[in-house]
Amino acid sequence: MFAMHLIFIPLQEHALQELRRVLPEPGVVSTDPDELWGYAQSVYTQLPGRPHSIVVHARSTDDVVKVVNISRRFLVPIVPCSGGTSLEGNLSAPESPSICIDLSGMDCILEINEADADVVLQPGVTWTRLNEILKEKNIPLFFPLDPAPSAAIGGMIATGCSGTNAVRYGTARAEWILNVTVVLPSGEVIKTRQRARKSSAGFDLTKLFIGSEGTLGIITEATIRLAPLLPTRVAVVQFPDVRQATEAVCDFMTQIDRGVRVHATECAELLDSVLMKGLNMASPDEGWSEKDTLFLKFQGSPSAIHETSEVVKTVCGKHGGTGYRLAHGETEAEKLWDLRRHAFLHAAALRPGARGWAMDVCVPVSKLPDLIYAAKEDITALNMIAPIGGHIGDGNFHALVLYQGAEEMNLVEEITSRIVHKAIALGGTCTGEHGVGTRKRHFLPIELGQGTVNVMTSIKRTIDPHNLFNPGKLYPDGHA
Amino acid sequence: MFAMHLIFIPLQEHALQELRRVLPEPGVVSTDPDELWGYAQSVYTQLPGRPHSIVVHARSTDDVVKVVNISRRFLVPIVPCSGGTSLEGNLSAPESPSICIDLSGMDCILEINEADADVVLQPGVTWTRLNEILKEKNIPLFFPLDPAPSAAIGGMIATGCSGTNAVRYGTARAEWILNVTVVLPSGEVIKTRQRARKSSAGFDLTKLFIGSEGTLGIITEATIRLAPLLPTRVAVVQFPDVRQATEAVCDFMTQIDRGVRVHATECAELLDSVLMKGLNMASPDEGWSEKDTLFLKFQGSPSAIHETSEVVKTVCGKHGGTGYRLAHGETEAEKLWDLRRHAFLHAAALRPGARGWAMDVCVPVSKLPDLIYAAKEDITALNMIAPIGGHIGDGNFHALVLYQGAEEMNLVEEITSRIVHKAIALGGTCTGEHGVGTRKRHFLPIELGQGTVNVMTSIKRTIDPHNLFNPGKLYPDGHA
Repeated sequence: MFAMHLIFIPLQEHALQELRRVLPEPGVVSTDPDELWGYAQSVYTQLPGRPHSIVVHARSTDDVVKVVNISRRFLVPIVPCSGGTSLEGNLSAPESPSICIDLSGMDCILEINEADADVVLQPGVTWTRLNEILKEKNIPLFFPLDPAPSAAIGGMIATGCSGTNAVRYGTARAEWILNVTVVLPSGEVIKTRQRARKSSAGFDLTKLFIGSEGTLGIITEATIRLAPLLPTRVAVVQFPDVRQATEAVCDFMTQIDRGVRVHATECAELLDSVLMKGLNMASPDEGWSEKDTLFLKFQGSPSAIHETSEVVKTVCGKHGGTGYRLAHGETEAEKLWDLRRHAFLHAAALRPGARGWAMDVCVPVSKLPDLIYAAKEDITALNMIAPIGGHIGDGNFHALVLYQGAEEMNLVEEITSRIVHKAIALGGTCTGEHGVGTRKRHFLPIELGQGTVNVMTSIKRTIDPHNLFNPGKLYPDGHA
Repeated sequence: MFAMHLIFIPLQEHALQELRRVLPEPGVVSTDPDELWGYAQSVYTQLPGRPHSIVVHARSTDDVVKVVNISRRFLVPIVPCSGGTSLEGNLSAPESPSICIDLSGMDCILEINEADADVVLQPGVTWTRLNEILKEKNIPLFFPLDPAPSAAIGGMIATGCSGTNAVRYGTARAEWILNVTVVLPSGEVIKTRQRARKSSAGFDLTKLFIGSEGTLGIITEATIRLAPLLPTRVAVVQFPDVRQATEAVCDFMTQIDRGVRVHATECAELLDSVLMKGLNMASPDEGWSEKDTLFLKFQGSPSAIHETSEVVKTVCGKHGGTGYRLAHGETEAEKLWDLRRHAFLHAAALRPGARGWAMDVCVPVSKLPDLIYAAKEDITALNMIAPIGGHIGDGNFHALVLYQGAEEMNLVEEITSRIVHKAIALGGTCTGEHGVGTRKRHFLPIELGQGTVNVMTSIKRTIDPHNLFNPGKLYPDGHA
């Protein structure tokens, strides 16, 4: 026996050297502290955390493969990032050293197939830019999933996103994502499906990557479907309470009225009285009644919109709705919808100096009033302010919990926890569209059952045996 | 050492004894030869094959768990069956002894949530019966996926089905299936999700079972979404050729015309000139022009339908469409749609005494003419008759290859193979809605790539390590 004197070089140092060797172009591999911190946080949630060890600005699928192979060789985990708008810590650095792959530079639209209403694009393209480009090119199509304006397609798929248009168009889990090209933890590149709209060739691996939050593969290309761009009108109506507003929505979305069905509703958004109060504080000139309010969007030809609007007005009246107003033209519609769009930003006025924590859950639509009333009780009991809004047509509840200082974060956690437990008890989910990230992992066994979580984690272990792809996210502790 | 004299009792005999012990009620466990053969074949394809060893008529999830546990203990594979309408050998008995689990008796509707537009039901409920029951109960909702009339929800999910309504409503892979309760090969029962319409809580395991053809789990309950029942009208228009018909469909489904968008198209079905000839032979009184013909369905209020119909008529006219006809009332609409519904049955008249082999593929819509012309060349070159139809709005191609005697089955195979290869080359899939079964497994690596197939089979092996769930289906030879 003899003594060994080893100079300990951390694995991430080896990884860094190797990354610089295979990606020598300036600026591709970075250890700039600002970047290391910047990419470990979402633009929306400045969570306390730790920085990544390395950031790589990928330019191609091939770059991603190189990083994945080095990650595997030196066992340094990878966290992918595209638009960086996540809300549940999905981008945060794990406890171990980590490489963040920044995909925002892979932002090319590769193919627009107008006749087939689909588009092939890279993960860094934001949905807003895609829609602008289609408009510039005079192509009367659009991509209807509308989360945060700067959300990019890679993260949108990985989070299973949706947005206000989901009432009519569904979510990322519907058939908008025709295929994804993915770099697996093995370094292998697969394309999940061809470009045809329909396929019955086995279970669709595309769906496995939707909502997997970068834990199973890194999306480097996608083919997505587009929808015809329809004329749209906005309407507003106010209610004595949340229950009546919800009943009106259930009624006009599924029931008959005067022989006409309402099938032109694109959005049905609820802003509760607290949120309306916030709107008034931010823009006193508007002078809104501080009542639970629906913001609606209708689509179709002028006559179809008119017909729908008349039915909705009548149905809302039956459920106590007052002040029904259909925007006259584009300008009024845009102004009204802007209120909805920025409602949660204005709501910060309700507690000056506070920050807002955005949380979401989702329940069967008919259960939404029960959830909202329970949430309001909890918020009051904890002496907090938290305006509530939601994609009411889908049962998707949002609250913006206003808090001051880190010491109130435990109240945010408490409110979130109570609302999530209530949502699950009502047949709902801990998140309708924000994802699981680091912060909702512990709810999964309660919501889905241990057996279902076990299947998810067994798939994770099969595909990523070394747990190198976004570790510490999605799966509960003790799994994966 | 001493000699051992063992009496060899096959494992399926042990399994049978054990099944009879745990399921002692009369008629539940059967070895009646007619049943053993009957359940090994689809009502549509009387494939030569072999019988199952045992049939179990399951009455509950608990029954299925008992069968699965016995299957695992004695290593006897299981083949599930609900409506029995599959077209690709999905139900056939494997080479080893097998237990068929008949789920058709699990046909209860457990819950109708009208306000949420969803329903909880067992796998043996057919979509036609579900829609009849909703009608009887005066609930103005329906389930829009419409494969074969006797298809049941279990098989519909397991095959990733769709049908004529997919243009407007999408397929089983969209968001119609909110959750499934599944018995896994381990005997464990999981429910994939709650009842909320949206969830972002990780990748959705529901989707893993959609299209998995019983190879990953046996569906014993499902929650499915319903759509509002809308007034519907039928229209017919004829074209000089397939390309012009397709271009008209692409045009009116995505383009502007006179400022009005066509968003009310529920179905866009193509019947080629050969199929129209079959219609004439079966019902000479109709006197149809034997031209490539579109059968369309519009939905909405009377004024929306009128508006849509006018636009479609104009667009079709631009693409050479003639004889545009909008059915006046329910009776005419029903009569016209019956022609579409039974077109392939009538087509048998084109070759008296022949049987028809129904095959499907799917391509991006704009590629459908290329596929159809190539298919027609192949059919002519092989001296066969095969009328072509399809859900043209989705690019889903169907051909009914008319053949006589087993000796012509190789020609059926040859035509199928050529059409599938062409479809894949055009960015399409080997099956749009029929599934893979035993007969299309070898196309999967060509269509999806070996890497994608490897991920599918690694998931199969993780969930079903002994390959007991519907072996020999879906995955190519040498996999799973």
